[in-house]
Amino acid sequence: MAQHIGKQTVIFSKPPIITHTHSSVGPKEADGPMGEYFHTRFADEINEEKSWEKAECSIIKHTIKQLLRLSHTQPTEIDYLLSGDLQNQINATHLGVKDFHIPLFGLYGACSTMGEAMGLGAILVGTGLAKKVISGASSHYCTAERQFRFPLEYGGQRTQTQQWTVTGCGYVMIEQEGTGPTINSITTGKIVDFDIKDVMNMGAVMAPAAVDTILTHLQDTNQKPTDYDAIVTGDLGNCGIEIAIDMADRLGVDLSPVMHDCGAMMYAQERQDTHSGGSGCGCSASMFSSYWYLQLLKRKYKKMLLVPTGALMNLVSTQQSENIPGIAHAVSISAPEQVISDKIQRFHLAP
Amino acid sequence: MAQHIGKQTVIFSKPPIITHTHSSVGPKEADGPMGEYFHTRFADEINEEKSWEKAECSIIKHTIKQLLRLSHTQPTEIDYLLSGDLQNQINATHLGVKDFHIPLFGLYGACSTMGEAMGLGAILVGTGLAKKVISGASSHYCTAERQFRFPLEYGGQRTQTQQWTVTGCGYVMIEQEGTGPTINSITTGKIVDFDIKDVMNMGAVMAPAAVDTILTHLQDTNQKPTDYDAIVTGDLGNCGIEIAIDMADRLGVDLSPVMHDCGAMMYAQERQDTHSGGSGCGCSASMFSSYWYLQLLKRKYKKMLLVPTGALMNLVSTQQSENIPGIAHAVSISAPEQVISDKIQRFHLAP
Repeated sequence: MAQHIGKQTVIFSKPPIITHTHSSVGPKEADGPMGEYFHTRFADEINEEKSWEKAECSIIKHTIKQLLRLSHTQPTEIDYLLSGDLQNQINATHLGVKDFHIPLFGLYGACSTMGEAMGLGAILVGTGLAKKVISGASSHYCTAERQFRFPLEYGGQRTQTQQWTVTGCGYVMIEQEGTGPTINSITTGKIVDFDIKDVMNMGAVMAPAAVDTILTHLQDTNQKPTDYDAIVTGDLGNCGIEIAIDMADRLGVDLSPVMHDCGAMMYAQERQDTHSGGSGCGCSASMFSSYWYLQLLKRKYKKMLLVPTGALMNLVSTQQSENIPGIAHAVSISAPEQVISDKIQRFHLAP
Repeated sequence: MAQHIGKQTVIFSKPPIITHTHSSVGPKEADGPMGEYFHTRFADEINEEKSWEKAECSIIKHTIKQLLRLSHTQPTEIDYLLSGDLQNQINATHLGVKDFHIPLFGLYGACSTMGEAMGLGAILVGTGLAKKVISGASSHYCTAERQFRFPLEYGGQRTQTQQWTVTGCGYVMIEQEGTGPTINSITTGKIVDFDIKDVMNMGAVMAPAAVDTILTHLQDTNQKPTDYDAIVTGDLGNCGIEIAIDMADRLGVDLSPVMHDCGAMMYAQERQDTHSGGSGCGCSASMFSSYWYLQLLKRKYKKMLLVPTGALMNLVSTQQSENIPGIAHAVSISAPEQVISDKIQRFHLAP
């Protein structure tokens, strides 16, 4: 039912189906150019909780609850939950999902976590070991900012290469049966280290990893970039996407006709002061679960390669002048054979 | 080749084989009652590095290098690496493994990470998606102490329920072909929350999760505790193991004849001042890769259930008075059909 091909790719003979998604974002993301695509738009980042950390947990909980409710699924029907986030020890995930009592694989791949979660979820479903799984990832601007950088109140200046951590999350249901876009193959990334230490330039860290995974995927599956309608990286941002296209070009591969980046799409650069764009696990997670999923349902894009990208560091490692390596995991997704109208409807009906 | 049975269990018709292991520990663990079983015993916790964090990375790197060297395996032959640790954003893993260039699934399950890594590794091998994987986990007393608790120099008093984070790690090679103990089934745990907030009593947090996973495993596989020669939890410690036996007893299951705990075994309680025992991802990882693996090779224990246990919290969540839930993942392992003398030799030859 599934087979390892080439160097790093698993291909599915009975492709797992992404039957449902739910995305939730904060006010800044809702105010951006993608705002209308998100299912739940929270009015503020605190979501009536006592702390930002608690707010992130509550957003995760809400998102999974909505995913279960709208798919008429009980938590007991879900075989596995695969999820991660940026809070230390992925604690937003743990406190956000604990009340669903679903067997959990806790994951950490920095902002590539959505790719890892969808990849392992597809393996569990594609090998017949699970009927239904939920995969997802979350991030929150305020929890990330104070954990990785400065207290928000400090009002630190940001360099032009810096990105804005997305407040939001996306969770998808992957099933053996049902209707929706299908996962045809996944390519699991290796850590790529280009000796970068600049914590203000995550795009430069992640671009080499994205290129490594994309080119390996194309080689493993014997495809060229234009076999995809879209190759969509997670959060390279405006700086990183240019680096990635340039790097691939020097390696003889022209990604430019099909390349998109969730981070570069998330905010209106000219009025939202987000510099190089969006970042965080929740960036590709929320963007795939909303805009990209809708494009697939509508068959506007018939085949996409989702490539969430992560920068591997923590506060101590950067203070100790360690390198920041990157990683990227690719998920190859096809549109359903027919436009699925009732699932498209959900995008207008969502609260 | 693999099948989902009962509520949370995957059973393998062609069981993946644990062909090789390597364990590395610090001086306190080497000085404990299990000291002679570990493959590499570092003379101090800093391992000639500039920081404890770098030391942990170097110990991981050394351990995987030894595992590859002694099994005559090139990194390119390994399909996947599955690993995690306790440093924020599992950064010890990232910096420790990056130079091997192996596709990586980064995991976080607190001290249950070894169970998660071996479980997912067994799935990849058992479904034929990988020929060889490496699974492992790491922890370090000094990095954990200053990250989760107090600066070491502070010399804080410790309660009797507290445990001592193990400096050490264990990595295992899981393969389709070869000789060694086999993984027959795995049971993936759910988060169990007993409303505990006491960060000084992780045994109490993890015991309910251990009992939940063990009882689910026995039910899913239609077995009783004594069908195992040993049920070995990760790091419940002296307090936690008593709670677990008592809880199971109240639920009508007598675990006492077969119950062991890596945390309770790690140190000499009477002279090493470790109170409730060892803890950390590296506790069950190093103990399984050394003592328990050797017992299986010698067929002293013919069937064991390894149940690494984790407490899900971070520094901020405990400061915000959040509950600390637990999780545990079970791996059912059988001894090889014959005593494997050459692999037993390694335990005496190891540097």
